[in-house]
Amino acid sequence: MTEQLHDFARIGHAELLTPKPDESLRFFVDVLGLEVEAQEAQSVYLRGWGDYLRYSLKLTESADAGLGHVGLRAWSREALERRVAAIEASGRGLGWTDGDVGHGPAYRFTDPDGHVFEAYYEAERYEAPEHLRPSWRNQPQRYVGRGACVKRLDHVNVLAADVRANRVFAQELLGYRLYERVELDDGTEAGAWLSLSIAAHELIYVADAYGASGRLHHLAFWVDTREECLRAADLFVDHDVPIEAAPSKHAIAQGFFLYAFEPGGNRIEVTTGGYFVYDPDFEPIVWTQAERARGQFWGVKTIDSFHTYGTPDVGGPA
Amino acid sequence: MTEQLHDFARIGHAELLTPKPDESLRFFVDVLGLEVEAQEAQSVYLRGWGDYLRYSLKLTESADAGLGHVGLRAWSREALERRVAAIEASGRGLGWTDGDVGHGPAYRFTDPDGHVFEAYYEAERYEAPEHLRPSWRNQPQRYVGRGACVKRLDHVNVLAADVRANRVFAQELLGYRLYERVELDDGTEAGAWLSLSIAAHELIYVADAYGASGRLHHLAFWVDTREECLRAADLFVDHDVPIEAAPSKHAIAQGFFLYAFEPGGNRIEVTTGGYFVYDPDFEPIVWTQAERARGQFWGVKTIDSFHTYGTPDVGGPA
Amino acid sequence: MTEQLHDFARIGHAELLTPKPDESLRFFVDVLGLEVEAQEAQSVYLRGWGDYLRYSLKLTESADAGLGHVGLRAWSREALERRVAAIEASGRGLGWTDGDVGHGPAYRFTDPDGHVFEAYYEAERYEAPEHLRPSWRNQPQRYVGRGACVKRLDHVNVLAADVRANRVFAQELLGYRLYERVELDDGTEAGAWLSLSIAAHELIYVADAYGASGRLHHLAFWVDTREECLRAADLFVDHDVPIEAAPSKHAIAQGFFLYAFEPGGNRIEVTTGGYFVYDPDFEPIVWTQAERARGQFWGVKTIDSFHTYGTPDVGGPA
Amino acid sequence: MTEQLHDFARIGHAELLTPKPDESLRFFVDVLGLEVEAQEAQSVYLRGWGDYLRYSLKLTESADAGLGHVGLRAWSREALERRVAAIEASGRGLGWTDGDVGHGPAYRFTDPDGHVFEAYYEAERYEAPEHLRPSWRNQPQRYVGRGACVKRLDHVNVLAADVRANRVFAQELLGYRLYERVELDDGTEAGAWLSLSIAAHELIYVADAYGASGRLHHLAFWVDTREECLRAADLFVDHDVPIEAAPSKHAIAQGFFLYAFEPGGNRIEVTTGGYFVYDPDFEPIVWTQAERARGQFWGVKTIDSFHTYGTPDVGGPA
Repeated sequence: MTEQLHDFARIGHAELLTPKPDESLRFFVDVLGLEVEAQEAQSVYLRGWGDYLRYSLKLTESADAGLGHVGLRAWSREALERRVAAIEASGRGLGWTDGDVGHGPAYRFTDPDGHVFEAYYEAERYEAPEHLRPSWRNQPQRYVGRGACVKRLDHVNVLAADVRANRVFAQELLGYRLYERVELDDGTEAGAWLSLSIAAHELIYVADAYGASGRLHHLAFWVDTREECLRAADLFVDHDVPIEAAPSKHAIAQGFFLYAFEPGGNRIEVTTGGYFVYDPDFEPIVWTQAERARGQFWGVKTIDSFHTYGTPDVGGPA
Repeated sequence: MTEQLHDFARIGHAELLTPKPDESLRFFVDVLGLEVEAQEAQSVYLRGWGDYLRYSLKLTESADAGLGHVGLRAWSREALERRVAAIEASGRGLGWTDGDVGHGPAYRFTDPDGHVFEAYYEAERYEAPEHLRPSWRNQPQRYVGRGACVKRLDHVNVLAADVRANRVFAQELLGYRLYERVELDDGTEAGAWLSLSIAAHELIYVADAYGASGRLHHLAFWVDTREECLRAADLFVDHDVPIEAAPSKHAIAQGFFLYAFEPGGNRIEVTTGGYFVYDPDFEPIVWTQAERARGQFWGVKTIDSFHTYGTPDVGGPA
Repeated sequence: MTEQLHDFARIGHAELLTPKPDESLRFFVDVLGLEVEAQEAQSVYLRGWGDYLRYSLKLTESADAGLGHVGLRAWSREALERRVAAIEASGRGLGWTDGDVGHGPAYRFTDPDGHVFEAYYEAERYEAPEHLRPSWRNQPQRYVGRGACVKRLDHVNVLAADVRANRVFAQELLGYRLYERVELDDGTEAGAWLSLSIAAHELIYVADAYGASGRLHHLAFWVDTREECLRAADLFVDHDVPIEAAPSKHAIAQGFFLYAFEPGGNRIEVTTGGYFVYDPDFEPIVWTQAERARGQFWGVKTIDSFHTYGTPDVGGPA
Repeated sequence: MTEQLHDFARIGHAELLTPKPDESLRFFVDVLGLEVEAQEAQSVYLRGWGDYLRYSLKLTESADAGLGHVGLRAWSREALERRVAAIEASGRGLGWTDGDVGHGPAYRFTDPDGHVFEAYYEAERYEAPEHLRPSWRNQPQRYVGRGACVKRLDHVNVLAADVRANRVFAQELLGYRLYERVELDDGTEAGAWLSLSIAAHELIYVADAYGASGRLHHLAFWVDTREECLRAADLFVDHDVPIEAAPSKHAIAQGFFLYAFEPGGNRIEVTTGGYFVYDPDFEPIVWTQAERARGQFWGVKTIDSFHTYGTPDVGGPA
């Protein structure tokens, strides 16, 4: 067995597309509690109080909802070069860009399903302005306490026509470790939970019910406690944010969740919990179709839309 | 034994005096998360999202910090009349006022230590304006989620030169039940925890270290969970609110606490928890001096200022 | 308007019938965390660590699951006499019993639906034996920390063929206050939430889907935090306790819940939260059929069995 | 800059020495909630419900309290060989042992302060026996729910006469990343927080107030929520476990803590929270003497014994 790759550190940011930029912005700022760090062209760059980089969410006006791209930060310049060479060799490379607000040159590529990723190393660490300076220096930003006050972007869940192909790409080319996956009775892979760290998931692929490509399932934002998920649900109820799945505990990865739709139509999760993987030889958990039918950890049946809806919305019978 | 009086329902509001009205208002609105319900003359009337009356805090500009008065709402017009007659007979009555924002005629009186109370029955139930209308009708107001977002005024703790005299007055004239008290080795009563309901305390008297009179120890605001107390502490740290006692659990009454000073100098508590008293014959717990020396529930030693500081501040060695 | 009755203090205990006494006992002791306080004949008397009386649950072997009776403790001997006279006059009296383990003479009667209640005043306050003596004297018993370690019996929810008749009986004869109720479009009353205190419910009547009588919907046990409900759910999952409804927040009364079935078939709730009613003139919330169709507070659809199942199980299509 | 070492995965276990083996065992099993996985000679091997290896605590009878050794699991056989070669070259190697219950050959060495470590790769993954089999396969063991039910060993904090020398050894030879450290005004290093993962600390060195060597400050056990720390404190109070520091939040690393002494005299922490380090170029936070004097996150002053006591206890004025 080859040794584990350690070239990418983590998803640095995700770009979310919204056809309702003003309403989406109000949601992310007033209800989720993010801060506006920069604005440029049709995009607003947003951050949680615990993000070490300048932002983790780039919100961009667009005709349709969906995922713009996912930014992966490398461990070092050398690590970046190694990954770019490998991706280029795989034939999935799109080429270099000059970078964006807060980060340097980025190499763009697609996963087999067509989602756009960019790999970069140079990035600006966040320096809080006076009014957002924290009391303790081991916290990047003051705890403002507005709305759900999510701490940072946690993970990205994308839909894929062929989960297995994308999962293998993420493992072999990007260095993700596979912690859990679902395999249906017919051998199809229905979902894969991947991570670059001990956290139980940072990138997830689940089967697109419509066989479409490049779609987003959801972006998840972290809070430190389950109580904050419950509190976020109260806020959503009183701020007319449509809740798709009320707070509960996932069977897979054991994370605590709350799912809702932001005004642009994208699914958003407020999440915490889950387990850490400390086993260097961790044997991925493979869930059967029968086990998935048990529902969530405490027996909650997963709502149908969770298995079919994604952005952009392709509608029609799944 | 005479049967339990049931004439007063609960403290409806407390008036807090502040020499720094603007800073105090910013604290109560931005950090504690109260809403401004009305303003009149030198006062601002503030409410928590769970207050059923229009407000529970009247914040009034004044040369010194301290307690303006405590408003007690009676169960009915007849109950009010009964109490007024008894208080009048006790010689502590000050007479009727026409009422104030949100409530009708009130009968003013003082406790033996000189704190001003007012008794009233007629009061306006809160009707949320459109932008504060809750999603569910069994909640008086939308959950806004700003800052510590305290739910309502919970209890009032006042200092008294003679705790016993005031405690007996509260029991006999006002109908409070005594749940816990501290008796020093010399027989002095050092504190008394009183309630009109099953909640472990709604009115507290503790000995004034300076033997002064009419002073306030603190006003306490309720949150539903201990996690919200911890979160409030994070907010205080990042909003330069001086914390006097970090979140922990009281030995007496077992409430969870966080104490800090609002800009005007008054001590404020964010509280939750405690036990309910369901025993109709509840035998008050009498704590000895030795037991008090054990500190708080988990062994935290109570900070000295907690035993001496009150508003107005009379300074000098205690 | 007549003044509020204050003759009953609270439900002191409930008797639960089980066809599987050993398994039920193991559940209540090992999983819910109750202590065995006494055993007599076919009954075991159990207590939570926060119960001030010797026990709050009497578990009795029986051919069928269901409710044995509900014990109501009066505020005083005089209050008891007043209530007994009124109940007797109503024609629902069954007569006096000599009492039971832990309490004195009790007057038995039925509500209109046939559930058996007993009213008593004399009761033994719990005195912890050495191994269960708490560190702080304002706690009746040591916090043992076994299983879900529920604190005390919280409320009783019974089914009734005619909710309105029973609700009116509870208000007029027993002195319960009505805080919330459901009224269907055809004027039928589908549920009523009643309390003797500021707690949002202590006795609940909901419509029996089968029109049967004397059935139990559930007994609810209190924990101090929502986190303990979540933890109880984890315990239930790993102890093969069938969860009917995973932890979430009720729309009615806003309590946090977890529903499961004990081995004898009775529905059990682990509960916390909710609001306090401090308004002496509280106007009961009347929910319409349309509002009930919204589901629970965060939009969770109530599972069908919750509307039909009760003990004893009368089966058949509802 | 050389690239980050990734040869060690994590501390697999720690051996704790106790002069009161029976009482210590009762504490770890009944109060902390660990399971006995094996017993051999003078040692008992204990595990939390979330430990993926057979055990994380080896409790060994000994004349004095203190740390036996720390076991570090390598990422692979090759990684182990690389580290052993480097350690051997450093002159700190002690040689190979045949292994122990649950793991294969281990290479023993000391850090500069003399604490014994062992490095190994081969280890037995835990396979739960029938009565401890979990309901969901992504959890190593059933959630038993006894006592504080800690999930796993989290970190080890050791005292050292020369913090800097040990910290540099841990970084250069073992591959630890440094996240925070304290530097006194005279340039002395007073503490260093190190990790092999994104978790804010897994190995900590703090200055030994007596200049002694090889001593233990504490072992920390993980729980998933702050509420479980609070609950553990309640359990400690009622089980006569001496609490040194009641639950609160650290300034350094922002972990939530509860410190107490197990019967053998060793300090034990129940911990949760803290932040994750996702920055590949994380600049270690260096705290000044003045900043440390601010106390803990919410202003709690650190108790004196925390700065002086360790095991074995060397007593005398610090």
